Amino acid sequence: MTPNDNLKTYSLKEMKNYKIHGRTDESQYPLPLFFNGSGIEVNATGSELWIDVEVDCDTHEPWIWTALNGAFMSRQMLLPGSYSICLFRSMSPEAVKNVKFFRELQAMSEDNRCCLLIKGFRSDGSFLPVSDRRFKLEFIGDSITSGEGTYGATEDTDWLAMYMGTSRNYARMVSDALDAEYRLVSQGGWGVLCAWDNDPRHNIPSRYEKICGLAEGEMNERLGAGKPYDFQSWKPDAIIVNLGTNDASSFNQPEWINPVTGETFKQHKEPDGSYNQDDLNRFKQAVIDFLIMIRRNNPDSHIVWAYGMLGYDLTFAITDAMNSYQKTTGDINIAFLQLPSTTTETVGSHAHPGEKSHARAAKVIIEYLQTILEA
Amino acid sequence: MTPNDNLKTYSLKEMKNYKIHGRTDESQYPLPLFFNGSGIEVNATGSELWIDVEVDCDTHEPWIWTALNGAFMSRQMLLPGSYSICLFRSMSPEAVKNVKFFRELQAMSEDNRCCLLIKGFRSDGSFLPVSDRRFKLEFIGDSITSGEGTYGATEDTDWLAMYMGTSRNYARMVSDALDAEYRLVSQGGWGVLCAWDNDPRHNIPSRYEKICGLAEGEMNERLGAGKPYDFQSWKPDAIIVNLGTNDASSFNQPEWINPVTGETFKQHKEPDGSYNQDDLNRFKQAVIDFLIMIRRNNPDSHIVWAYGMLGYDLTFAITDAMNSYQKTTGDINIAFLQLPSTTTETVGSHAHPGEKSHARAAKVIIEYLQTILEA
Amino acid sequence: MTPNDNLKTYSLKEMKNYKIHGRTDESQYPLPLFFNGSGIEVNATGSELWIDVEVDCDTHEPWIWTALNGAFMSRQMLLPGSYSICLFRSMSPEAVKNVKFFRELQAMSEDNRCCLLIKGFRSDGSFLPVSDRRFKLEFIGDSITSGEGTYGATEDTDWLAMYMGTSRNYARMVSDALDAEYRLVSQGGWGVLCAWDNDPRHNIPSRYEKICGLAEGEMNERLGAGKPYDFQSWKPDAIIVNLGTNDASSFNQPEWINPVTGETFKQHKEPDGSYNQDDLNRFKQAVIDFLIMIRRNNPDSHIVWAYGMLGYDLTFAITDAMNSYQKTTGDINIAFLQLPSTTTETVGSHAHPGEKSHARAAKVIIEYLQTILEA
Amino acid sequence: MTPNDNLKTYSLKEMKNYKIHGRTDESQYPLPLFFNGSGIEVNATGSELWIDVEVDCDTHEPWIWTALNGAFMSRQMLLPGSYSICLFRSMSPEAVKNVKFFRELQAMSEDNRCCLLIKGFRSDGSFLPVSDRRFKLEFIGDSITSGEGTYGATEDTDWLAMYMGTSRNYARMVSDALDAEYRLVSQGGWGVLCAWDNDPRHNIPSRYEKICGLAEGEMNERLGAGKPYDFQSWKPDAIIVNLGTNDASSFNQPEWINPVTGETFKQHKEPDGSYNQDDLNRFKQAVIDFLIMIRRNNPDSHIVWAYGMLGYDLTFAITDAMNSYQKTTGDINIAFLQLPSTTTETVGSHAHPGEKSHARAAKVIIEYLQTILEA
Repeated sequence: MTPNDNLKTYSLKEMKNYKIHGRTDESQYPLPLFFNGSGIEVNATGSELWIDVEVDCDTHEPWIWTALNGAFMSRQMLLPGSYSICLFRSMSPEAVKNVKFFRELQAMSEDNRCCLLIKGFRSDGSFLPVSDRRFKLEFIGDSITSGEGTYGATEDTDWLAMYMGTSRNYARMVSDALDAEYRLVSQGGWGVLCAWDNDPRHNIPSRYEKICGLAEGEMNERLGAGKPYDFQSWKPDAIIVNLGTNDASSFNQPEWINPVTGETFKQHKEPDGSYNQDDLNRFKQAVIDFLIMIRRNNPDSHIVWAYGMLGYDLTFAITDAMNSYQKTTGDINIAFLQLPSTTTETVGSHAHPGEKSHARAAKVIIEYLQTILEA
Repeated sequence: MTPNDNLKTYSLKEMKNYKIHGRTDESQYPLPLFFNGSGIEVNATGSELWIDVEVDCDTHEPWIWTALNGAFMSRQMLLPGSYSICLFRSMSPEAVKNVKFFRELQAMSEDNRCCLLIKGFRSDGSFLPVSDRRFKLEFIGDSITSGEGTYGATEDTDWLAMYMGTSRNYARMVSDALDAEYRLVSQGGWGVLCAWDNDPRHNIPSRYEKICGLAEGEMNERLGAGKPYDFQSWKPDAIIVNLGTNDASSFNQPEWINPVTGETFKQHKEPDGSYNQDDLNRFKQAVIDFLIMIRRNNPDSHIVWAYGMLGYDLTFAITDAMNSYQKTTGDINIAFLQLPSTTTETVGSHAHPGEKSHARAAKVIIEYLQTILEA
Repeated sequence: MTPNDNLKTYSLKEMKNYKIHGRTDESQYPLPLFFNGSGIEVNATGSELWIDVEVDCDTHEPWIWTALNGAFMSRQMLLPGSYSICLFRSMSPEAVKNVKFFRELQAMSEDNRCCLLIKGFRSDGSFLPVSDRRFKLEFIGDSITSGEGTYGATEDTDWLAMYMGTSRNYARMVSDALDAEYRLVSQGGWGVLCAWDNDPRHNIPSRYEKICGLAEGEMNERLGAGKPYDFQSWKPDAIIVNLGTNDASSFNQPEWINPVTGETFKQHKEPDGSYNQDDLNRFKQAVIDFLIMIRRNNPDSHIVWAYGMLGYDLTFAITDAMNSYQKTTGDINIAFLQLPSTTTETVGSHAHPGEKSHARAAKVIIEYLQTILEA
Repeated sequence: MTPNDNLKTYSLKEMKNYKIHGRTDESQYPLPLFFNGSGIEVNATGSELWIDVEVDCDTHEPWIWTALNGAFMSRQMLLPGSYSICLFRSMSPEAVKNVKFFRELQAMSEDNRCCLLIKGFRSDGSFLPVSDRRFKLEFIGDSITSGEGTYGATEDTDWLAMYMGTSRNYARMVSDALDAEYRLVSQGGWGVLCAWDNDPRHNIPSRYEKICGLAEGEMNERLGAGKPYDFQSWKPDAIIVNLGTNDASSFNQPEWINPVTGETFKQHKEPDGSYNQDDLNRFKQAVIDFLIMIRRNNPDSHIVWAYGMLGYDLTFAITDAMNSYQKTTGDINIAFLQLPSTTTETVGSHAHPGEKSHARAAKVIIEYLQTILEA
């Protein structure tokens, strides 16, 4: 291959025309992409475009996907190193190409070395401004929102980075349909009160107010993950909370024992199969507290609790908490939306919702948000 | 047409092999079909089959549909008179044909002369036993459950008998998919607490415990409509309540004035668009009371409150009432199911859900009930 | 039911504002509807509308369907007699309602008493002009085009009037999608050269140039069925010929013996399963001759031979004949279109294409004709 | 990332358990993947698997896609060099993982440096035998069969390697549905007689009998591309020829001039829009000759000429040629299948069929082949 001698290197530090997707510390260089759905978007002329990245990980390697002019083009594993990835070649140089580069893998609370940093681009063209979308949406969730199961065969049962993604998840589908930018805060296995295995440390609210409270360890600290998130900087029109699925599981799982302190935690069911009321109440309180936290940080956003893709078990508990919250606060800018549960026809890998299940859920959310946002 | 001299007349009084669909007073002769979805089913040999009916009405004429071997065959208006309708002719005489004859039109609270009575059949064959379906389902609702809008063009705005039906409504779709018999109790415009126009007399609970509390007047009284319904005679595996849509409308409609007493009724909204709490509370109490009534009469049935085909407005109020009911009674054999709201693509006539909207709602209910009934 | 004293009777003889669908002798009174898809259309005001008909038949009773404002409303069997059928009641009187009344049953070559005649209407409103559609389409075919199998259960095997229809056949779907009027000439079991049972008298070309060469006997003669059809009176933009399926069957069926003369006819296959060339050649010649006949009568119409809904067996024979015809005549205004064959998922009753199969075929034809007619 | 010290390198030279997809010179090491749809498949245990490749190109870089246990996992550009690509990591070591690695890019007649060579694998597990599929299918075509347009936005108009693929083309869909292995021989712009631009050298038949007659130049010669293809080594159950689309275009394009000799070539239309008969005849002769060539090399394969995804223009010419061929040879093991033309709803990038169009075509072929192969 004859090298393209016209390629020039552009550091993000010097560039003006690009758009960052996802929560991050925008003062960092290179720029960290913490979350699935985090990414960078440019409008570029030229025949060729490369992106310069730095990657590291231990067990869970980042995956990325790219879109050219809005169409899915590539999806691949990124392994540790500092290198360039070609985003396009041999194109008509004059035309403006819209290119998006997205992280597929969720923020990885279990792999402190996992990182994906953007240094800049190499191009033989120039960069033009990237326009804003019509709306801004924030999605908060668990493995469903991390897109776990949207890749992989239905018989696959490993818990694997490569089965996760935003390229096929409902958050992306909703955002594309509504012409919206989106930010995701999600972590597989986590809940509102506790995780699927009753680990009470693994609740999303405890991390929500940091830039990326899910990315831990010294390196992530240095990258700004632990800084307070500036809610003023990006005000979502709607916030979709898709949590409760792991809280429901915790009632069926063994007690969790803190490996350090020996303390235990367990959500109980009664012998008749009903939820223990005290345990259910602390779940409800966690929902209420999280709504208060979300509202405090997002005074004007429409908050939708969307629930059901892996079963409707906690419908009553969630709506009871939302009713309590609403009665106490008078906040009528909230809604509860039930998403169609996953069936054998719509399931993906690792017993998680597949692309078809995400598409069904997305349709419900799209149609609902149209009545709210486009009214 | 050469007359078929082999036809014999069979009165229901003498027949054994037939199945009645829908709530009715089975001691009556001729047999009244009060509700949409009420009907009669036979397995008949012979080349030809007729059904003998008596029909009357004032403004709102009954419509019926028939199915042969499970497939939709005809749909037509029935006008007053006593006559026979041919259900099939010229068929292979030996084969057993399953024939269903169903009322399309809802029980007509606004037309006391409206009636559809079955006297019997005429056949040149014989009648065989009709087997039971796998499940029994009861659907309670308003115009949605009466199938209003499932026929007619989207631009049609009359309130008309012929736009209603069970042949295309979600209750039939769900029942067919689950191999279930169904009974419907529905009335367009009615609610749990009051009607769309704030008329508090038009609430379904007040009629639920009669055979057909919606059919009024002397004739219907004589036909047994006002008798207590024998809940022991047919025990549904699940009861689907699809009410609340008209209660939601009442908050936006003018005060209702009792034409006789001058008394008034009105559900109010606050200036900020929220529901007046007192009014909302009496709606919630009506939901609670209705759940208590349903449960008292159906101790073992799974009760699903299915809501949303014309908007999600009262989701919080309904779930709050259900939570209260559940906390008070400990009844965990209930569920709340949100049905996809109707869009411009799925709307039918008279601004009501069309066949496509019913199909979407049916899918949600089918998939849910499969997890409950087939578990 | 209180009689509507405002109804006035309108004889077709006196009416101006109506549109006749389908080939017929428009000079007749009452007006005969010979074919499936034949019908009458009005734009009427008033609260109520009835149609006055005369019906007769022996074995095969006519079925009809009606549409209100373009939406399917009813489908029913018509039995012998002279009577009125109510098309709507209780509607807003001022609004103009478009009403179509269509024969479902094909012209019945095996029931000379079968007839459906229109005398006029009864209305309390008035009649307005009916506008023309954008295009005119003629469909020529066999049982597929007669819609056999579009009603009835897949396990039904009788050959029955009630399984036929235009309300669910591809000809209606195509016409609705393209905003076209349509005329059908079809007969179950018939072919281009001979019938499925090798009866050489049962070929469509021999009847094509009469108004309805398929309706035989004295009564139909009197109704004008045997008169030459005036091709100048209605010039189709496209003619869709869907024939060949029964010709293909004839190769697999026993010899036909003329019950009167004892003469026989049989299309043969060779021992290796291939078609006997002489027999295939006379089929091809019949295709050529029919194309010549169609073109002679319709100089400007686009002719599409559409084939395949019940197997692709004669694809080569038909295209060979069309190539021969084209080489001889230079006629480039013809096309061959293969329609998707029927599968177990799309089959209807009596082993014929079901509604889903018709919908798939319609889609192919619609998309093709759009490139021709809307170019 | 901690390196996996258990990885061992396996050269294809030493390995037994792998399956090669696509025509190639299997005696070569490293193994060349010449065609789109060419690839290699293994069943591997272990936690980690890498593939070792050598890549080169000038303008048109190869793209590849991978599947894990049958599910699409990645798609990416490969740039020149000799390197390893990780196919999976961190998986349960004991489980047997089926991994497929496929070339997306067609054989590139316009880039003689373009190559993709497989050297072997790196694994910490072992390799198990790969079972055969139920059927073998060969697809012969042009840009449609090269999957051009199955990636990219509808507004994209460049002629680009990355818009091509097998991961979304009809050949893969058909093969997956029928549990078949497939081999592709296709080249964008080429025809049976000549290319879209009237270049008579660019016809598929001239290259069909070599392993990869489309890959030219010294390097490809060395890789075995020019060797005769051994038709005995892999006998397809069916051969699907999807050619004629570019031949149709040639009638509308300017004369081609041989840049070396000055000779010209042009398929003409008459002033009335019809095809010049002499030119059409040489196209037909090319079809006949190609059928003879295919049959000579594949005596028992069912040959389907599938045509129409970009218009039905040459339907008569192709069927006329097939009829001639059949009359001359008596070969009844051939069929003509019309594929649904691409519409604005199903189009992909570069005005080529998109994924939806491929899915529609695949469905027609699948249903047809089921009647042939599974009969």
